[in-house]
Amino acid sequence: MPDRRKKVCVVIASRANLARITTVLEAVRDHPALELQVIAAASVLLERFGSAVNVLEAAGFTPDAKIRFIIEGQTPATMAKSTGLGLLELPTAFERLEPDVVVTVADRFETIATAIAAAYMNIPVAHTQGGEVSGSIDESVRHAITKLSHLHFPATELSARRIIAMGEDPRYVFNLGCPSIDLAARTHPGTRRDALVDHCGEGSPIDPEQPFLLVMQHGVTTEYGHGLAQMNATLRVVSSIGMQALVFWPNVDAGSDEVAAGIRQFRGQGLADRCHFFRNLPAEDFVRLMTHCSCMIGNSSAALREGAYLGTPAVSLGTRQQDRECGPNVVFTSHDPLDIADAIRAQLAHGRYERNDLFGTGTAGREIADLLATVDPPVQKRLHYDSATLLGDRTNV
Amino acid sequence: MPDRRKKVCVVIASRANLARITTVLEAVRDHPALELQVIAAASVLLERFGSAVNVLEAAGFTPDAKIRFIIEGQTPATMAKSTGLGLLELPTAFERLEPDVVVTVADRFETIATAIAAAYMNIPVAHTQGGEVSGSIDESVRHAITKLSHLHFPATELSARRIIAMGEDPRYVFNLGCPSIDLAARTHPGTRRDALVDHCGEGSPIDPEQPFLLVMQHGVTTEYGHGLAQMNATLRVVSSIGMQALVFWPNVDAGSDEVAAGIRQFRGQGLADRCHFFRNLPAEDFVRLMTHCSCMIGNSSAALREGAYLGTPAVSLGTRQQDRECGPNVVFTSHDPLDIADAIRAQLAHGRYERNDLFGTGTAGREIADLLATVDPPVQKRLHYDSATLLGDRTNV
Amino acid sequence: MPDRRKKVCVVIASRANLARITTVLEAVRDHPALELQVIAAASVLLERFGSAVNVLEAAGFTPDAKIRFIIEGQTPATMAKSTGLGLLELPTAFERLEPDVVVTVADRFETIATAIAAAYMNIPVAHTQGGEVSGSIDESVRHAITKLSHLHFPATELSARRIIAMGEDPRYVFNLGCPSIDLAARTHPGTRRDALVDHCGEGSPIDPEQPFLLVMQHGVTTEYGHGLAQMNATLRVVSSIGMQALVFWPNVDAGSDEVAAGIRQFRGQGLADRCHFFRNLPAEDFVRLMTHCSCMIGNSSAALREGAYLGTPAVSLGTRQQDRECGPNVVFTSHDPLDIADAIRAQLAHGRYERNDLFGTGTAGREIADLLATVDPPVQKRLHYDSATLLGDRTNV
Amino acid sequence: MPDRRKKVCVVIASRANLARITTVLEAVRDHPALELQVIAAASVLLERFGSAVNVLEAAGFTPDAKIRFIIEGQTPATMAKSTGLGLLELPTAFERLEPDVVVTVADRFETIATAIAAAYMNIPVAHTQGGEVSGSIDESVRHAITKLSHLHFPATELSARRIIAMGEDPRYVFNLGCPSIDLAARTHPGTRRDALVDHCGEGSPIDPEQPFLLVMQHGVTTEYGHGLAQMNATLRVVSSIGMQALVFWPNVDAGSDEVAAGIRQFRGQGLADRCHFFRNLPAEDFVRLMTHCSCMIGNSSAALREGAYLGTPAVSLGTRQQDRECGPNVVFTSHDPLDIADAIRAQLAHGRYERNDLFGTGTAGREIADLLATVDPPVQKRLHYDSATLLGDRTNV
Repeated sequence: MPDRRKKVCVVIASRANLARITTVLEAVRDHPALELQVIAAASVLLERFGSAVNVLEAAGFTPDAKIRFIIEGQTPATMAKSTGLGLLELPTAFERLEPDVVVTVADRFETIATAIAAAYMNIPVAHTQGGEVSGSIDESVRHAITKLSHLHFPATELSARRIIAMGEDPRYVFNLGCPSIDLAARTHPGTRRDALVDHCGEGSPIDPEQPFLLVMQHGVTTEYGHGLAQMNATLRVVSSIGMQALVFWPNVDAGSDEVAAGIRQFRGQGLADRCHFFRNLPAEDFVRLMTHCSCMIGNSSAALREGAYLGTPAVSLGTRQQDRECGPNVVFTSHDPLDIADAIRAQLAHGRYERNDLFGTGTAGREIADLLATVDPPVQKRLHYDSATLLGDRTNV
Repeated sequence: MPDRRKKVCVVIASRANLARITTVLEAVRDHPALELQVIAAASVLLERFGSAVNVLEAAGFTPDAKIRFIIEGQTPATMAKSTGLGLLELPTAFERLEPDVVVTVADRFETIATAIAAAYMNIPVAHTQGGEVSGSIDESVRHAITKLSHLHFPATELSARRIIAMGEDPRYVFNLGCPSIDLAARTHPGTRRDALVDHCGEGSPIDPEQPFLLVMQHGVTTEYGHGLAQMNATLRVVSSIGMQALVFWPNVDAGSDEVAAGIRQFRGQGLADRCHFFRNLPAEDFVRLMTHCSCMIGNSSAALREGAYLGTPAVSLGTRQQDRECGPNVVFTSHDPLDIADAIRAQLAHGRYERNDLFGTGTAGREIADLLATVDPPVQKRLHYDSATLLGDRTNV
Repeated sequence: MPDRRKKVCVVIASRANLARITTVLEAVRDHPALELQVIAAASVLLERFGSAVNVLEAAGFTPDAKIRFIIEGQTPATMAKSTGLGLLELPTAFERLEPDVVVTVADRFETIATAIAAAYMNIPVAHTQGGEVSGSIDESVRHAITKLSHLHFPATELSARRIIAMGEDPRYVFNLGCPSIDLAARTHPGTRRDALVDHCGEGSPIDPEQPFLLVMQHGVTTEYGHGLAQMNATLRVVSSIGMQALVFWPNVDAGSDEVAAGIRQFRGQGLADRCHFFRNLPAEDFVRLMTHCSCMIGNSSAALREGAYLGTPAVSLGTRQQDRECGPNVVFTSHDPLDIADAIRAQLAHGRYERNDLFGTGTAGREIADLLATVDPPVQKRLHYDSATLLGDRTNV
Repeated sequence: MPDRRKKVCVVIASRANLARITTVLEAVRDHPALELQVIAAASVLLERFGSAVNVLEAAGFTPDAKIRFIIEGQTPATMAKSTGLGLLELPTAFERLEPDVVVTVADRFETIATAIAAAYMNIPVAHTQGGEVSGSIDESVRHAITKLSHLHFPATELSARRIIAMGEDPRYVFNLGCPSIDLAARTHPGTRRDALVDHCGEGSPIDPEQPFLLVMQHGVTTEYGHGLAQMNATLRVVSSIGMQALVFWPNVDAGSDEVAAGIRQFRGQGLADRCHFFRNLPAEDFVRLMTHCSCMIGNSSAALREGAYLGTPAVSLGTRQQDRECGPNVVFTSHDPLDIADAIRAQLAHGRYERNDLFGTGTAGREIADLLATVDPPVQKRLHYDSATLLGDRTNV
């Protein structure tokens, strides 16, 4: 059967990952040499994290498997155990679907579960967003996934070079930009009114005539135990600015319970009178919010990634995005309320930034699909170093 | 409590790992600034893999936890699932023992489960035998563990340089040699008669007056489906040589059932009249066998590692040790019976080799313990590259 | 060691179970021949189910183990899988704590996981609240637990007779009443103002001068898919009555997400202006609310159990408590809004009921502890029927 | 679709269960109103337990799912944990196959995992071999499964009456005999020579001209720790009788490692010179061995069940079958070697017994299929007692 289509199985296991892989899903589905398989897993299926699966299905992607593997109680131990549960569940789906390649996104525990399951089952792994640098346990996990992956689609040139430096074969490392930028590039920006109307959520109503702040803060595993106070502090600063604010509930992570408790504490303090709280939004709506917000605050990587392309003024808090590559639109601060307030005011004074192409120009999805169709890395990996060179002079390495 | 002893938790999860960490166990136990915790896990606890836990306990190490996490039926999928089960179990033990550092050995699925569990729980991971190159899924898993580890104790200089090249901080990479060599160095070689008497096992009796071959062949995940025929072929060649042979049952791996079936098939064919079959041996006894055997055959890494120091003539089959660093004592061949036979005869003609210090000189355990006591890497890792250099010129990286 | 204290391990795995076992915890702790071990598990540890563990710890019971085993996404499949995860986790704790007897409460998936784990580990199981009849999968699970248990502490005489009829040995079946009644009996009722002040929660403030309704509705596995509409309907009826209402978030069950969504939908409809929402309360506070509420509405078993003793007018909806033994204080209805409204109005017209001792008089905890200290059932169970009698005449059985 | 065929999913999870359900598989497959689904699970898939799946496939039944859920190291704790792993795996298969009814066999941990998974997923459970009485944890588990099951196919009239006495609705309890008898009834007995030739296995060759003993002894959870000595004792007695013996390796159970070690110890003692060791046989071959053996020794239930129909002289050891219903062909003894020897000699003196129809006459499979096609029990179970009668007089119950 010379022209059997290659089965590409994309595992989507968190809300954030969905927007970062949507255009790959589309391009694989539409590619004549590829057959798309979709696994919706983990928090993608959970109502309290916004049921991103509904967004996926609304976009026409019916999951071939739905796998629940989040153990409740987001402590560091349950995060490790949820990884374990994912490793018990994913091989069952892979055995049934028999993919020719598995695509895994970014750097979370769901992602490493996917990579290990596929690697042990001799299925080549394609990894997007490798080679980036950040804080949190994500930093270690991301590079571990790189070492388990056969095909690399980093989002920037620097990330590509890091992956090669780590000993990956340059023939299988491709910088095509980030698929999340594809969505940002093709979304009609509309007006602020377009951005603000018609979302559900809870809390104060939104006034579409007024400027607004966007808050998105997640738990940080390596800062476990501080999340409640940090989120409460962020929201109190936001409240003190005097602008209306759209606040997102956190992802599922060690620490997400803390962040959610910080939101609830803040609401209980009666300070939330200009705040509106969301669980999830379609990616296009989120892009529109980023296009029209006065400033984005928190520790989401979207502020760096889509933010660079959209020119969104952003304040990045704490260590989660520390040292991650970004454009000029981001100001980094500590969790100190005064620092946060200064940074927000500086960004409000600056206003929006120029478009920056650091993370791509909007063609990543299609190009990744083309490469998935044509490149066949060997299942047996091998560290790509020349031993003689390495041994030549340790200080030069 | 300024002088609380640092808790070092060593996870031993396969028979092979035990010999490679024993002198570390001893040195940590005896170190005034350290408190030893031992977790015996996976095949270490299983009777059909030789209950290495008995060896451990006989050596005076009572496990602080015993964790069974091997799912029977060593297919690629159950290997991934056993990793998952390990990730469900290990955090429970870590929560109870509260180690300050976790030590994990080499490159198996039990090892990556240990590394992920500790890393997500913000416990620094010390890894031995990183940076080596081999075939099989172990190759990918070994380097993924490196990316999750905070402290690196590779066994050779080349391995250390590879780890640094992969972006690990050189301040936390130490080439002290392999602790398995410590055992080889201190074991009194005795005579062939000492090496051969008094072991249990089954099959033909051993004649301590006669030379012998040593066969140790494990399943290879990336060659899944070929293990039975390969093992049968090896044993038939060994049988044709006409010397008595000591044959080890395989480790627990995808493919170990196949290899075991190959042994059973061979025995059923009535060819095993000069073969004696073992499940496990104390490390000292194994060193003595390697010291006195005429040739070691199979795909065990001991042939390369302890073999270098002991000068054991060895024939390494197939891809499992492919490209792994070794001394002059090893001849690599395919699984072709004629090639195997030629290689064995060449080694028998050559006889024993000179001692080679590639994998150390016998001081690794003590030096590792000293470093565990004094070095405190930060929990938050960071890829150790200079971005400007990386971006300078892609071809130079 | 003739006078070693007997180790009694109580597994508390849901919010509802806590109040039903608290006086047993106290009596075991205070008994000279017993040593109390407490395992806090499942939803007891989860913030979004009210962190009942805090109540437990505030009462002076520090858990010997905390075990998280709820897999998020309360579908029927994840309920079965959470049972499985409990069975992976509980044996680890039992191996460490080595209890002489394990106490398990009522009829949930956490309870059967406890019973199976202990039974396979040859640890006698003591079961409270067996022999009752209800709707939902709880009905089957409750009786399955009875067949795995060695010592039975049913809450009523009828339940005790059912357990004996099921073939359990009458020497190990004791009707001592329900420990939840102990709490009800010893709680000072106070005034309505005492009942209503000082709780947290969210939604409309509570007016301590005004009468109030109490709403507690859980997911029903065998009605999966209807929970949202049912809860929304209940709340709309409650809203139409015109009294302020205290509404509890549901337990963790298949269907609890639906019920929670029903609450959120109702709040989104802007009808919740007299409703206050709780996650959890100390048992004494809950007893006081039941003592002073005008009517309790939903499908909680507390309405039948504590309600009988306290004389609380109650409306029980749907099949969850169907056919469960109860006193005169309960009116059963369908989920039809008109029926619910009629039933509530009838109960409001009737007012409070006389105390009814069907579920005990307040001495259960102490008596259970005494029996745990003195009765030692054999680990090997045996169906307690006389074969000759059974075979005598089938129609008479 | 008025005439959609009803999907019957049979879960086969141990070697012993296969022979007890084969004619049901055939009859369901051949029934015009039914569609057969087969799940092969647990030890059925394991090489070291004889890969019963090969027998299943050779008989034309291709599994719709293969599920590995045995955790190695058959301690009581891993038996509970394997049940848990089964509960994590089976719901995935049930979600995919969407059976209308699930059939589960007998009384093992795999069986209760099946029953719980199906029950929580609102799938009716049909249970074969309920209502029997035996030793071991199987006794409790069997009756717990009855309480989770909706349709009961016990193997004897007494078992049927016990199930009804336990509170099951008599409309759903059917004594049709045991499907294992169907196989015994239709297997051509052949000659001793037919029974003895052509099996593989290991150990001494079998002399088809000579009489032989049949040994089948399994681990007993409630006697954990004694299995090795018991098996060794049995084999030494067998050896002392002086007849050739066919010995089966044990099932996967807590204690099976011990029994296997007992076999290995016995072989190591050099006493096995008239013993031949098997892992598994097709059911027809096993029936033929039971038809022609001089005496069957051990604790297998086949000695009681098929043994009754075939008239096989049998010696049942220890507590495992204690009090189980049986015909005149069985002598029960302790594990005392002298008692065992006396019992074997008595049976050898007696010779074969008359056919006994206690467990059926050979039509069970077909009749069970007919009832699966026509009977639809409600998913919501309810204890089938009359409360008034129960309360009438406790002593009469």
